[in-house]
Amino acid sequence: MALMTGEEYLKSIKARKPMDIWFRGEKITDPSGHPALKPSLETIMTIYDLGHHPKFREMLVVKSHLTGKECNLYTSPLMSREDAMQKTRVARSLAEVLGCCTFRCTGSEAISGLYPLTYDMDKALGTDYHERFKKWLMNVQEKDLTITAALTDVKGDRKLKPEHQKDKDMYLRVVEKRDDGIVIRGAKINQTGVLFGHEFVIVPTAAMTEEGKAYAVSCAVPADTPGVSYALGRTPFDQRMMGDEYDNIDIGKKYGDHQATLICDDIFVPNERVFMCEEWEFTPLLIEFFTAVHRLTAGACKSGGVSLLTGATKVVADSINVGKISHIRSKLAEMGITAETLYALSLSAGVEGFKHESGAWIPNSLLAHAAKYQATIMPHNIVRYVREIMSGTGETFPAARDLLDSGISEKLRKYLAPAKEGMTPEDRLRVYRLAENMARGSNWSAMAIHGGGNTEAARLMAYRHMNLDKLAKLAEVACGIDDNDELAADLISERHGKIDWDPKIFKVKAK
Amino acid sequence: MALMTGEEYLKSIKARKPMDIWFRGEKITDPSGHPALKPSLETIMTIYDLGHHPKFREMLVVKSHLTGKECNLYTSPLMSREDAMQKTRVARSLAEVLGCCTFRCTGSEAISGLYPLTYDMDKALGTDYHERFKKWLMNVQEKDLTITAALTDVKGDRKLKPEHQKDKDMYLRVVEKRDDGIVIRGAKINQTGVLFGHEFVIVPTAAMTEEGKAYAVSCAVPADTPGVSYALGRTPFDQRMMGDEYDNIDIGKKYGDHQATLICDDIFVPNERVFMCEEWEFTPLLIEFFTAVHRLTAGACKSGGVSLLTGATKVVADSINVGKISHIRSKLAEMGITAETLYALSLSAGVEGFKHESGAWIPNSLLAHAAKYQATIMPHNIVRYVREIMSGTGETFPAARDLLDSGISEKLRKYLAPAKEGMTPEDRLRVYRLAENMARGSNWSAMAIHGGGNTEAARLMAYRHMNLDKLAKLAEVACGIDDNDELAADLISERHGKIDWDPKIFKVKAK
Amino acid sequence: MALMTGEEYLKSIKARKPMDIWFRGEKITDPSGHPALKPSLETIMTIYDLGHHPKFREMLVVKSHLTGKECNLYTSPLMSREDAMQKTRVARSLAEVLGCCTFRCTGSEAISGLYPLTYDMDKALGTDYHERFKKWLMNVQEKDLTITAALTDVKGDRKLKPEHQKDKDMYLRVVEKRDDGIVIRGAKINQTGVLFGHEFVIVPTAAMTEEGKAYAVSCAVPADTPGVSYALGRTPFDQRMMGDEYDNIDIGKKYGDHQATLICDDIFVPNERVFMCEEWEFTPLLIEFFTAVHRLTAGACKSGGVSLLTGATKVVADSINVGKISHIRSKLAEMGITAETLYALSLSAGVEGFKHESGAWIPNSLLAHAAKYQATIMPHNIVRYVREIMSGTGETFPAARDLLDSGISEKLRKYLAPAKEGMTPEDRLRVYRLAENMARGSNWSAMAIHGGGNTEAARLMAYRHMNLDKLAKLAEVACGIDDNDELAADLISERHGKIDWDPKIFKVKAK
Amino acid sequence: MALMTGEEYLKSIKARKPMDIWFRGEKITDPSGHPALKPSLETIMTIYDLGHHPKFREMLVVKSHLTGKECNLYTSPLMSREDAMQKTRVARSLAEVLGCCTFRCTGSEAISGLYPLTYDMDKALGTDYHERFKKWLMNVQEKDLTITAALTDVKGDRKLKPEHQKDKDMYLRVVEKRDDGIVIRGAKINQTGVLFGHEFVIVPTAAMTEEGKAYAVSCAVPADTPGVSYALGRTPFDQRMMGDEYDNIDIGKKYGDHQATLICDDIFVPNERVFMCEEWEFTPLLIEFFTAVHRLTAGACKSGGVSLLTGATKVVADSINVGKISHIRSKLAEMGITAETLYALSLSAGVEGFKHESGAWIPNSLLAHAAKYQATIMPHNIVRYVREIMSGTGETFPAARDLLDSGISEKLRKYLAPAKEGMTPEDRLRVYRLAENMARGSNWSAMAIHGGGNTEAARLMAYRHMNLDKLAKLAEVACGIDDNDELAADLISERHGKIDWDPKIFKVKAK
Repeated sequence: MALMTGEEYLKSIKARKPMDIWFRGEKITDPSGHPALKPSLETIMTIYDLGHHPKFREMLVVKSHLTGKECNLYTSPLMSREDAMQKTRVARSLAEVLGCCTFRCTGSEAISGLYPLTYDMDKALGTDYHERFKKWLMNVQEKDLTITAALTDVKGDRKLKPEHQKDKDMYLRVVEKRDDGIVIRGAKINQTGVLFGHEFVIVPTAAMTEEGKAYAVSCAVPADTPGVSYALGRTPFDQRMMGDEYDNIDIGKKYGDHQATLICDDIFVPNERVFMCEEWEFTPLLIEFFTAVHRLTAGACKSGGVSLLTGATKVVADSINVGKISHIRSKLAEMGITAETLYALSLSAGVEGFKHESGAWIPNSLLAHAAKYQATIMPHNIVRYVREIMSGTGETFPAARDLLDSGISEKLRKYLAPAKEGMTPEDRLRVYRLAENMARGSNWSAMAIHGGGNTEAARLMAYRHMNLDKLAKLAEVACGIDDNDELAADLISERHGKIDWDPKIFKVKAK
Repeated sequence: MALMTGEEYLKSIKARKPMDIWFRGEKITDPSGHPALKPSLETIMTIYDLGHHPKFREMLVVKSHLTGKECNLYTSPLMSREDAMQKTRVARSLAEVLGCCTFRCTGSEAISGLYPLTYDMDKALGTDYHERFKKWLMNVQEKDLTITAALTDVKGDRKLKPEHQKDKDMYLRVVEKRDDGIVIRGAKINQTGVLFGHEFVIVPTAAMTEEGKAYAVSCAVPADTPGVSYALGRTPFDQRMMGDEYDNIDIGKKYGDHQATLICDDIFVPNERVFMCEEWEFTPLLIEFFTAVHRLTAGACKSGGVSLLTGATKVVADSINVGKISHIRSKLAEMGITAETLYALSLSAGVEGFKHESGAWIPNSLLAHAAKYQATIMPHNIVRYVREIMSGTGETFPAARDLLDSGISEKLRKYLAPAKEGMTPEDRLRVYRLAENMARGSNWSAMAIHGGGNTEAARLMAYRHMNLDKLAKLAEVACGIDDNDELAADLISERHGKIDWDPKIFKVKAK
Repeated sequence: MALMTGEEYLKSIKARKPMDIWFRGEKITDPSGHPALKPSLETIMTIYDLGHHPKFREMLVVKSHLTGKECNLYTSPLMSREDAMQKTRVARSLAEVLGCCTFRCTGSEAISGLYPLTYDMDKALGTDYHERFKKWLMNVQEKDLTITAALTDVKGDRKLKPEHQKDKDMYLRVVEKRDDGIVIRGAKINQTGVLFGHEFVIVPTAAMTEEGKAYAVSCAVPADTPGVSYALGRTPFDQRMMGDEYDNIDIGKKYGDHQATLICDDIFVPNERVFMCEEWEFTPLLIEFFTAVHRLTAGACKSGGVSLLTGATKVVADSINVGKISHIRSKLAEMGITAETLYALSLSAGVEGFKHESGAWIPNSLLAHAAKYQATIMPHNIVRYVREIMSGTGETFPAARDLLDSGISEKLRKYLAPAKEGMTPEDRLRVYRLAENMARGSNWSAMAIHGGGNTEAARLMAYRHMNLDKLAKLAEVACGIDDNDELAADLISERHGKIDWDPKIFKVKAK
Repeated sequence: MALMTGEEYLKSIKARKPMDIWFRGEKITDPSGHPALKPSLETIMTIYDLGHHPKFREMLVVKSHLTGKECNLYTSPLMSREDAMQKTRVARSLAEVLGCCTFRCTGSEAISGLYPLTYDMDKALGTDYHERFKKWLMNVQEKDLTITAALTDVKGDRKLKPEHQKDKDMYLRVVEKRDDGIVIRGAKINQTGVLFGHEFVIVPTAAMTEEGKAYAVSCAVPADTPGVSYALGRTPFDQRMMGDEYDNIDIGKKYGDHQATLICDDIFVPNERVFMCEEWEFTPLLIEFFTAVHRLTAGACKSGGVSLLTGATKVVADSINVGKISHIRSKLAEMGITAETLYALSLSAGVEGFKHESGAWIPNSLLAHAAKYQATIMPHNIVRYVREIMSGTGETFPAARDLLDSGISEKLRKYLAPAKEGMTPEDRLRVYRLAENMARGSNWSAMAIHGGGNTEAARLMAYRHMNLDKLAKLAEVACGIDDNDELAADLISERHGKIDWDPKIFKVKAK
């Protein structure tokens, strides 16, 4: 069936076992029925439906290189430069429509990372992870499942390695190896969309050492596995999302996402779902493969969000007739340039990647981390503009119900009427709420700062991928410290003008 | 009685006539009993109590130059450089404790502006506004009333003057002049704390022309005057504020504020409460006097908020044991420097002011607007740091109830425990919520962008106060376009090294 | 001969007629012999030589689509996405080696712009400019000439159109039309490398109106045409460049560039060299085609300069053993990320272009102007880091002669010795001088601010290319102002995820 | 005589012994006759003359608290809040006229630091440094000498302490103690104005340990002491400064400064000139006292430079008739606000200082370092604006001689004529050169990045002075981690609203 519709997806979700989800003291067993999760459900169902939409289909459906059959872009590893570029474009486009996370990205990134990783592991170690992974993946493609990646451990004391923590469970680990599988224990935080995924794929959050090999684990777990618990994270808007039709207006938009803490309490995972178990020396490589795609996407999807926010700012400005004023135009231009800058970094990360022996396409890590770095800074900066242009009114607007259906409605409609012909007070409220949602209420502004890793993590990774020694050598030749002119030619020409970036980082160091 | 306690204040508020306040479709007649306004009530009662606190008393109590008796700093116009400096210090200190608006500042700024303004009007026009104003003010001082300033009109089409708007009520105006008083109509937005003020003082939001003289109006109106309506603005946290003990934890702090839209539906104001009526040529001067103090305060109070957020960030960083890491220390330092920069601008605006003929002390406008300008930009920039350092966890934290009193509590307490000795999971949640409150949930982040006017307004006002022609002349002398060396001496020496700033702006142009 | 060597190039330059060049009151007739232009000569000769270098050849030599023969990349219009990407890579790579302008870029951009422009003109107007242009171009390719673009007029009063200036010559114009050609008058400023070009191509600096059609002119002029005068612009280092061996060390690097004011005093240009004459309605299109390539390059070459400066900063930091300190690594990372950001914008501008009917490849204007916008800001920001890391010493370093060959040499060598093993005091001086050259002394820092147009010009152009109406519509759908969900699909899908950018701007408006 | 005129000063300088100064391989024995130092000489003579100028006198002349007689502000330690404020105002005002360093500041800061320091040392150690210092100071006041502070050592390997360097002379030290004095060896770099000072005062550049007590030395040395050598640092404009009348125009302004490396080759200093010798435990205190004043000044003088540059930018903008354009006004406003921000920080550092037991006034260190921090960043940022607004032309302007007196003059004057009535082409060139001088050619832009210490040094010092623990405690009270409400009162009230800053840092730790 390869491509579910939104309705089919919903049915598949409702068919899950009762789950152990908590929100404000209440236990939720089926997230699809909970009002605080309705925007999330709208999001994921829409994404499934878009796979059948005549105009989106071409963007979202690809041919599986495993089966030759159609499958969703999110269930296929990146296999070419074009795939990588399409990932950027889809991430941006969906964010422009949804203004939130799509949930399916992280899983697709885990898939793109594990595909070449298992290939390399098998080649080096004689294991059969790659076949096992492909088999699992074909099922995912066939059933068009939503997969999320479970990466970020709770980490405890950030200065200590996993194996040196007071509580050894601060990073998820293998607590028992059996013949037929493994038992895992630990928690993962910041799990965007996890309640609406069919499965999550465990990925280690950091490079592990031999001493900490129990933490070198990757496996796929159905989201409704008994023993897995979830605590939904709060957002400033969570109660507003549970409201009636007027609060729906006050949310600002139909689509949304959620983030949860995921806890695995000694969960058994059968071998056919295990893709790494104690091969600690391959953890850096897995992180490289995964983050190269993950951070490419982080730039692209923030680009789309910034575009949507730019459009919202234009509507806001026009509502008070300042859309053509010089400083507003300057700010709109800067917002638009910000969107393109993030887009360009992500697109280029795809363009400047390389073909891995397994057939997978690995984006350029330096550009991917640069994309992520800018994506943690630039969106926050332009958020100031939209809030400035709403100039107070946007943040002190009365409730939709007060505006539309209360004893003060008439007065409010008079005084808060927009200056734009044909625009109603309700319209004005709606666009202010959209801006409020993205700038403050929803996860968007949070993810625009640290979704996919924070500034310093991205900076550090980018630093590691820079070829500073080569740049230093270029400087030495330029200023005459080194008088070997040929050296510059050598340094430059070996990459034929391509970006300077050291693929040796993708070699696994021998034990 | 001159200085009420919190309890006395509460009694005075409860003694008001029933009011017409709306929030989420519900009519509120006594704001002191509404849960969404509880943090506001805590704030204002605390400020009254601090006037009796042995350690704060010295900061908050001054001697009235009108009566010679003690009165609250907020009911006295600035009469000296020391008063202005004290205003900066109090604003910063209270913000460091409250992390929100104090409500009483804007009123004190209107008082500081109207005092010299009415003096100048009387002198030029032969009116008796100054005596009238002093009489009103003595009553305010005597009863220790909280006054708010009602400045910001709804403005309609921002490109049109008040008198050219399609709906003439887009700016508050005098619709009828009677022998015993005036009738006013219009609305004011972004009214911080207005529900807990005893009176509000109308101040024009912009300079008016002769054609628009009906909009040149200033008067004092009791907040419970029949015919005045209020619509409370929403905040992302408003529902959380209405919650039980667990939501109280999720709010992040005890104190808070509120903003409302205030609507005057043909309100009669008796002459003794009217301080300007149609004297349009004095509106620029009133705005100058008012904003000089208002924007001085805007810098000071953001300074205090930034300090509190810096402290919160330190607690956050220590909770995961990264407080001493190099890049965290750099960011904490930058946050602290930001607080001092805003403080310095406000303090200097007070120091570099001048003594008005009426006896009032007028802060330096250029520095005050510069303070405001930086206060619309710098706090937003450092908000990114606190959110970055919470690195996701802070924004996906489960509800307090889930952590403390639910079926998943035990697991959450294990996994979300801080790394710091003696700190509990609840402690960790509390400080994350404090940061979330200031960065996203409450009005603080909104006011840190446009409280007291937005970036461009401050930039424009600062531009007007710069003596660019004099600076250009200095440049011409420096580069030899003008070879009159003495000129530089003249330019510099006339101000004896003081800040260059043109007091002519405080002259009223003849009709 | 298609590809000259450096020596052949020099011969061709020396064969020119005596020119009318002025520098510090001195007339120069052959720039190739002047010491202040030696770094420029090194640059251009090296670029010719690199076309024969086994490792650079592949980057710099392309097959002419006109003749099928090899020609230099700089003499061929962009005909494909790959050409555009190669332009970015070459621009970056050469900047990494040279740390200055290459001189040949602007000409290649004029070629890339005039190729499709003349095609469109002919199609619309029935003229034969395209054939004429191709003929001229084949000669350029055959002789491997260096062409520069003469764009920027002196402009007089910036608020007046060319035809309204007091002196009508403030923009270059056609003063006479003859049967066999035209006579032009006017001046062009900021002419980088013009003294070492064989010809310059006049391009209008702005869109012209019908009234100002005399200013709508494009033509090719040999640089040694009698009546053309040049005044070399000063740089802070110009006298240092005229020095002996020690000043050569103090320059900081071997390569450099120059900028000149070019004055055409009633120059006759025969018809076969005229590519536009009074077709004012095509001036916007010419500017679009030209700037799309020109600003793509501006991002790429600044990227290379930033890389070289990053390398220099690394050498500086290591010389005092701070290269591994946390805040230095952070800054190096940010410098490297800056280089990649500019690179990504340029690369993407090429990737996201479109195929013009003439066969030319037109880069994406929005991305190209975004690249330029960031290129006017980001390099200046990181220049602060290199100067900060040199921490004073770099800017107060004594002359090379003092260090190496004077009565104080011994002492200086002792006290200014670097802390790095194997590095000499002279080495340390050299790298400081390289940084000083790029940050202050040479044209690099100037071009990093406005080379190819200033910030506001780039911002304005980017603004024009943004599809703000579409973004506003997306926002309206997202927040429910417009409830036509299909609209979003339409808006997004029509571009299949590609960057939003309105090609209608490339239509010429009917007269 | 207490207050020399410029001529008297020049005579005093010419009366010095021949010195050992090197510049570009040439030995200079009397700097007052060297063309490259002419702008420096103009500066210092003008400063002496201003002490007699009827309009500046009041700013520059103070009453000595030691003698009761008039003396120059630069020879008197800060003794009151007013003194500190005056220091800020004078520093700003002179920078607005000169656009460069005054040379006399650092000495006055050493005086302000050594005055309380010697007092504290005597009190703790029973030494008589304070009397000795006062005696020396009275002579300085009496003779109106220019003193410079020699602080910055060459430092060798930045990661090693002085006593662990391979070459022990990398920090200046006492190599011999005799009965009648000490012998010192070492070098100091970045010595601004040192060639025109009568004496320099050695101050340690960092806190010393007991092991490195030989480096804990402070003493006064006449600048013409035999055995002291100087190497003048190059600037991009140094050769231009040696030129004729046309190059003088190309310098851009009359005043300038210089920086030199100063080398002490076993210099004997008699006891009466020694103010610290091996008292290593007092080095942190000396640095605190010195930098509190030094960095206060750094903010103030950059403020003045930014003002002058703002004026220059206004003249530039008007010359092409864009002075009133929206984005230009925005940028001018931001430049002006930058100047006020730096001024406010410096002024406040003086206002918020404290009275030392010796009678000296110590500025607030936190604010002083904050001033310095911003002064290393903000001026660089606005330099981009002036260069952007000159939009290329300013950086490619031909030489003054070409414009005014050459075969191309007529043409250049036509094409480079300004658009402003009454402004000549020469005027336009002059103001462009002024901007070029400050932005690139002279030491100004260098000092605007690291004059008085670099960004990280200021950040670190500010960090040390922040009371982060108290801020953390405030946050804990605010969010309820600590429920002791009184604590907040205690924390705030103990400083009565004054800036939070820990004076304990000024206590010397017991050995």
